[in-house]
Amino acid sequence: MAFQVKHKVWIEWDGKIVLSDGRAALLEAIDELGSIQQAAKRFGMSYRHAWGLIHKIEARAGFKFIQTNVGGKEGGGSQLTDPGRKFLQKYREFRRKWDATVEELFQQVFQGPTP
Amino acid sequence: MAFQVKHKVWIEWDGKIVLSDGRAALLEAIDELGSIQQAAKRFGMSYRHAWGLIHKIEARAGFKFIQTNVGGKEGGGSQLTDPGRKFLQKYREFRRKWDATVEELFQQVFQGPTP
Repeated sequence: MAFQVKHKVWIEWDGKIVLSDGRAALLEAIDELGSIQQAAKRFGMSYRHAWGLIHKIEARAGFKFIQTNVGGKEGGGSQLTDPGRKFLQKYREFRRKWDATVEELFQQVFQGPTP
Repeated sequence: MAFQVKHKVWIEWDGKIVLSDGRAALLEAIDELGSIQQAAKRFGMSYRHAWGLIHKIEARAGFKFIQTNVGGKEGGGSQLTDPGRKFLQKYREFRRKWDATVEELFQQVFQGPTP
């Protein structure tokens, strides 16, 4: 057993949350499953709630994250827009670096016997 | 206006919070004011609540953070123990480095026009 560092991180615009790990996971699940409904289900969330989150994310970021194609040969489906995908990739890159850095910093400062 | 990164960080032992910014500030205020009562007041907290927090911090960390001297020529007074002061210094060092690093990481990844 040892002391552990715990942390949360999220992205805001004008004091309001745009993206967090939870929101990023929802967007990625929509893209993977091609469906807001099924992605919501995966997180035990109502369609209405998932839709509300997407709306907030898009309103605050100022661009669309999800596009929904209605009908066509392949049927309808929801997926990430190009700007949405790019932003999410940046978020993931930031989070990966963040996790590695935080742990390193913590070990640096708190290493050795305490107190 | 630009995207901003927000974050929280705290130290746990065995899945329970030992130290956070709020708790660190309380301990430092006790040391500064020489009084749990007055430090609690500064944060709009009851003495009982402050005492409960100190008890939790000490029980989880496994050592005393605050020592209280009763009576004597100078009257009673509460202050940080040596191990408490050392741990708090490490926490502050970690937090300072953390703040600088997080902002740098975020700028690295999210710099330039978005998306």
